[in-house]
Amino acid sequence: MIKVVVLGAGNLGYHLTQKMLNSTTIKLIQVYNRNIHKIEYLKDKVEITNNLNHLKQADIYILCVSDNAIQEISSHLNSPTKLVLHTSGATSIDNLKSNSEKGVIYFPQTFSIDKNVNFNNIPICIEASADKSLTLLKKFASEFSNNIYLINSEQRKVVHLAAVFVNNFVNHLYYNAEQICNEKNVPFEILHPIILETVQKIDKISPFKAQTGPAKRQDTKTINTHKAMLTSTQLDIYTLLTKSIQETYVKKL
Amino acid sequence: MIKVVVLGAGNLGYHLTQKMLNSTTIKLIQVYNRNIHKIEYLKDKVEITNNLNHLKQADIYILCVSDNAIQEISSHLNSPTKLVLHTSGATSIDNLKSNSEKGVIYFPQTFSIDKNVNFNNIPICIEASADKSLTLLKKFASEFSNNIYLINSEQRKVVHLAAVFVNNFVNHLYYNAEQICNEKNVPFEILHPIILETVQKIDKISPFKAQTGPAKRQDTKTINTHKAMLTSTQLDIYTLLTKSIQETYVKKL
Repeated sequence: MIKVVVLGAGNLGYHLTQKMLNSTTIKLIQVYNRNIHKIEYLKDKVEITNNLNHLKQADIYILCVSDNAIQEISSHLNSPTKLVLHTSGATSIDNLKSNSEKGVIYFPQTFSIDKNVNFNNIPICIEASADKSLTLLKKFASEFSNNIYLINSEQRKVVHLAAVFVNNFVNHLYYNAEQICNEKNVPFEILHPIILETVQKIDKISPFKAQTGPAKRQDTKTINTHKAMLTSTQLDIYTLLTKSIQETYVKKL
Repeated sequence: MIKVVVLGAGNLGYHLTQKMLNSTTIKLIQVYNRNIHKIEYLKDKVEITNNLNHLKQADIYILCVSDNAIQEISSHLNSPTKLVLHTSGATSIDNLKSNSEKGVIYFPQTFSIDKNVNFNNIPICIEASADKSLTLLKKFASEFSNNIYLINSEQRKVVHLAAVFVNNFVNHLYYNAEQICNEKNVPFEILHPIILETVQKIDKISPFKAQTGPAKRQDTKTINTHKAMLTSTQLDIYTLLTKSIQETYVKKL
């Protein structure tokens, strides 16, 4: 049994905790959160605390806290033989300031409290400061998913940056499309099938080959019609992405 | 039986033709294309032609041609009692210059020759110049899908514009993310699960509520780290979309 303490009760901490409570290989022995009220619902299932000096002995301490809190909280975790992990995509392993074995377990996924998680489908990016830790970390990670990648700190930053493009920015484009539809009483649901098809396409062909539309076709008439329909910021987005698509295909064809 | 002539053999024309050849309610009687070689594979199944003066009598003529060709080709279709349809998202019904009944059937979807289409899942936007034509058009459209919307020319332009955001622009963000990954030998497949989750989320919650990430969190440190990793055009895209997300949440919260 791998004994684990979870630190932090945000979206990721919540879902990891739920998964570990149902594991037969991992024994969740304690959950820490600065605000104890947020984890009181766990108190019948596992020990809870809001005091870093009261942490129990465990094999792994896993930080599910904001990026800014990693240095400060890890500096309290000084058990040389134990493994301290952070879960941040944007943070180097060197930001762990504990006098301990160090590692990172990063889930490139978007988590919401109100949506169940099937960890089997989620890739896991891991990194460790020593081979021994890596063995333990692999064993721990394989309890969540078999989709495990060895990714160093520099590569992890790349995964996180690319995830901003395909998740945060894509979602913002969905938001803008919904605004455009609402303005003229067009139901946004009309677009759900094309949204899904766009995603499914890139499982089969590269995004470079999958590109279609007026920008790629250099269809200036349609582009100008579209531009006349947009608000100021939408127009900036339309103009820049159209230019970028055109440059991509002029350059490469 | 509704007798139909298809004009044009691009991606949409191809998939409509395949569907009609297997229909028991629609009788595809002829396919026209400017370049006859592109439709020769059909000649054992249906009459083909590249001469607009040789078109047969039909109930519906459906133009699957580029937006620029709609006026010119429709001007040759002068059968007052027949229905002439175009299939363009960006074009008004008034661009049909035939002396006939007029209508539009627009499929807000991205079609590729090498990917099969399940029309059942595709919404259909229809518009007609007269009630009688609308009845025939509804009957015709219902052979493809029951997901039919009455959408006028102004609304259809909105659907098309919004589709550019959620399809063309989203695909271009996928392309950029893939480039970012390739640069550092990170497999792009790591991002497929988060791409799919981003899409599935907006079936349940609005894109406004689904937004996450450093821009919304005003996480300036991560934003600056990301900016330092990008090429010039990627940096422009990152900066503009980050600004737009921040403005959206400052404005609305």
